[in-house]
Amino acid sequence: MIANRGEIAVRIERACAEMGIRSVAIYTEPDRFALHVKRADEAYFVGDDPLASYLDPRRLVDLARETGCEAIHPGYGFLAENAEFARICTEAGIAFIGPDSEAIAALGDKVAARRVMHAAGIPITPGGMAALGGLDESRALADGLGYPVMLKTLRGGGGRGLRRCDNATQLARAWETLPEESGEAELYLEKCIATAQHIEVQVLADRHGGVIHLFERDCSLQRRNRKLIEVAPSPWLTPEQRAYMGELAIQAAAAVGFENAGTVEFLVRGNEIYFMEMNPRIQVEHTVTEAVTGVDIVREQIRIAAGHKLAFRQEDIRHHGYAIQCRINAEDPKNDFLPSFGRVTRYYAPGGPGVRVDTAIHTGYRIPPHFDTLCLKLIVWGMTWEETLNRAVRALDDMRLQGVKTTAAYYEEILRHPALREGRFDTGFLATHPELLDYSSKRHPEEVALVIAAAIAAHAGL
Amino acid sequence: MIANRGEIAVRIERACAEMGIRSVAIYTEPDRFALHVKRADEAYFVGDDPLASYLDPRRLVDLARETGCEAIHPGYGFLAENAEFARICTEAGIAFIGPDSEAIAALGDKVAARRVMHAAGIPITPGGMAALGGLDESRALADGLGYPVMLKTLRGGGGRGLRRCDNATQLARAWETLPEESGEAELYLEKCIATAQHIEVQVLADRHGGVIHLFERDCSLQRRNRKLIEVAPSPWLTPEQRAYMGELAIQAAAAVGFENAGTVEFLVRGNEIYFMEMNPRIQVEHTVTEAVTGVDIVREQIRIAAGHKLAFRQEDIRHHGYAIQCRINAEDPKNDFLPSFGRVTRYYAPGGPGVRVDTAIHTGYRIPPHFDTLCLKLIVWGMTWEETLNRAVRALDDMRLQGVKTTAAYYEEILRHPALREGRFDTGFLATHPELLDYSSKRHPEEVALVIAAAIAAHAGL
Repeated sequence: MIANRGEIAVRIERACAEMGIRSVAIYTEPDRFALHVKRADEAYFVGDDPLASYLDPRRLVDLARETGCEAIHPGYGFLAENAEFARICTEAGIAFIGPDSEAIAALGDKVAARRVMHAAGIPITPGGMAALGGLDESRALADGLGYPVMLKTLRGGGGRGLRRCDNATQLARAWETLPEESGEAELYLEKCIATAQHIEVQVLADRHGGVIHLFERDCSLQRRNRKLIEVAPSPWLTPEQRAYMGELAIQAAAAVGFENAGTVEFLVRGNEIYFMEMNPRIQVEHTVTEAVTGVDIVREQIRIAAGHKLAFRQEDIRHHGYAIQCRINAEDPKNDFLPSFGRVTRYYAPGGPGVRVDTAIHTGYRIPPHFDTLCLKLIVWGMTWEETLNRAVRALDDMRLQGVKTTAAYYEEILRHPALREGRFDTGFLATHPELLDYSSKRHPEEVALVIAAAIAAHAGL
Repeated sequence: MIANRGEIAVRIERACAEMGIRSVAIYTEPDRFALHVKRADEAYFVGDDPLASYLDPRRLVDLARETGCEAIHPGYGFLAENAEFARICTEAGIAFIGPDSEAIAALGDKVAARRVMHAAGIPITPGGMAALGGLDESRALADGLGYPVMLKTLRGGGGRGLRRCDNATQLARAWETLPEESGEAELYLEKCIATAQHIEVQVLADRHGGVIHLFERDCSLQRRNRKLIEVAPSPWLTPEQRAYMGELAIQAAAAVGFENAGTVEFLVRGNEIYFMEMNPRIQVEHTVTEAVTGVDIVREQIRIAAGHKLAFRQEDIRHHGYAIQCRINAEDPKNDFLPSFGRVTRYYAPGGPGVRVDTAIHTGYRIPPHFDTLCLKLIVWGMTWEETLNRAVRALDDMRLQGVKTTAAYYEEILRHPALREGRFDTGFLATHPELLDYSSKRHPEEVALVIAAAIAAHAGL
């Protein structure tokens, strides 16, 4: 059973199909005719609430049992990091395709994870090692660390539940507002590493003690802590840094008795490396790692959950060329990234060499307002960094996605920026280049021809 | 200028876009709204005849000059192997993206090419080294070689202009009919290597003496000498054979002073290797070589024609995993592969890991009857042969292409055959497995659900 929807559900169904495994999809009303429902071997309606019905652990496990499912893949988001869900799956005799509930719980409490990693010798961001008792304590800690600092919720992560504070006044304000906005009372505090590379290492671990890494992804191209464009490998990391971070990631996985696929996230600034968090699930951007290593990560997840040993040893894993993933979101970049839900009036997939598309949209698809705005992942591979950038721009230009606003043209502008070509970008890049939002609407050849014809006519005095 | 249409024109336009080169498309009436026209930076109508207007060398070169083109890419088919076209391009100061006219002429005369290759020490199929003077001469030669033999036209190649003869009677009949059917009077004769592997080696040669090969493709899955499914690398070739054939291909290229991208085709049976022909152009199946080596062959073609040195040395070229290309033709396999022209009522591209699509079709596209039936190339990559086969079946199943009959379901049946899984297939495979045509029409989950519901209802006596 795939306890998810959208592109990741389709992705998992494809892995199942290739492995000869029958798949069961679930859906709520807005997804009745969705691709993940059609693509599955069976599909079941799970409730009246468009979103919440996807999130009912007990009900989904009951359905899995009734339909004879041997395993549940949670995808990302939804119930993927819900330790309770993992626990009741296991109790029901259904394999949860992910780590066990203890590991999920240990990693879900971000400050507990800091303690575990620190004890295991993994460098962590300077900051608190426990939940803060009050504003006074946080002020004292911030003074010791020096501003800016990051106030975070214990169970946040993935860019949610955090607030940068540049001074004591902002800290006091965040102390008031963050619990309310996040719905979480417990907070902790870290030194803010404002501009750094966001580097994450993909790990795979089986239940026989096998742990390998699949090198890193560079996820520095973020807007307000949301990843927009991801790259593998990082174009600026040295082979020594790469090897060192791979080792760190394997240590981190071992420290929590990790099984299945996970990601160890670091902030890197020069020679400083700080552990940020570990995500115990498939990630949206796993695709770029697949493109450069050739490893089908979802397939490995399923194999691991079935009790198999890893299909690879560390020395079998090589990386070739570069890959870039663009998260095409249904948002209007020129209007503060306001969601743009509605009907896709025309969609045509880009193709050709080095282009992969993961999506659940199609012409006529109505993007429902109940879920996130990610509507298509465009992944390109190239032999060199320059070829990959050029291919990404070409593929974005090839794609037709009309009826809703998307981030595609914004990404074309980003990928054309000279600093990117030189491999220089960090987590501050998009914020310090607001001019990238000044792209003109995409010009199609027909329009260009009209402009030229008009200019010629004007010149000739016609 | 791209002197072609359909998927290969789009392919070349994509390479141009990635290289920052403006592209000029040409079209005749049936292609007025075709993707290759929309995708290009400029497009020009070239004449009233749907097909012949694509084939007028002088007119196309004149148009290229008028529109300021610096180079012409001929694609495959059409004018790609027309030595005269290459010559007048060069005379007009326009780079022909291919070898020079002398090399094209030398390779176009298949018996002359046999003499050149034989002189260069390349093993060739036993048979005649010159055009035959008459039926008596051909009978004598056939008796010497032993039946079966292949009667071929001098300027055929690519599966056209040839006839297998199992005895003297068939030879006499073919001697009468082949010139008439092919429009060519001159014939020659070779020993027929009935069941063998059809192996071709991709070569790249620059004008500075650099020649490399990109390993081989296995094109044994043919029907009546037409390639349907191609594979790279060959799943059964030994590393020694691979290296030896790569060397042979480089020798063959050198023997004709070859420049640009070409393919040296061999028949292989056990340890016997026979040169068949060399094709001086991009091939339909170049995609599988791109998938396993990462080299963008069209990009290299353009670079070579611009006078650059090869971007790679032989030792830079590695192959990773396996790739399979399925030529989805608009034909009805169950009706002797009768062309199925008409309107594509629904097209949805397959996607996900390891899947590449090269096509110029879209929903609403009308497949014109003037051209060949190839409407989509589906290319999949996988780390192992088994993964690649499973992925190809999955991707074929993912694809929706409705409104015309296609070869897709037939290919699913082929790719599921146990012999293929073991890597055992030769040029006789499809002919000796006519039962592969007995596939049932593709069942979609909805249909399966209906069948099951009906069975349950029947069982319950409802």
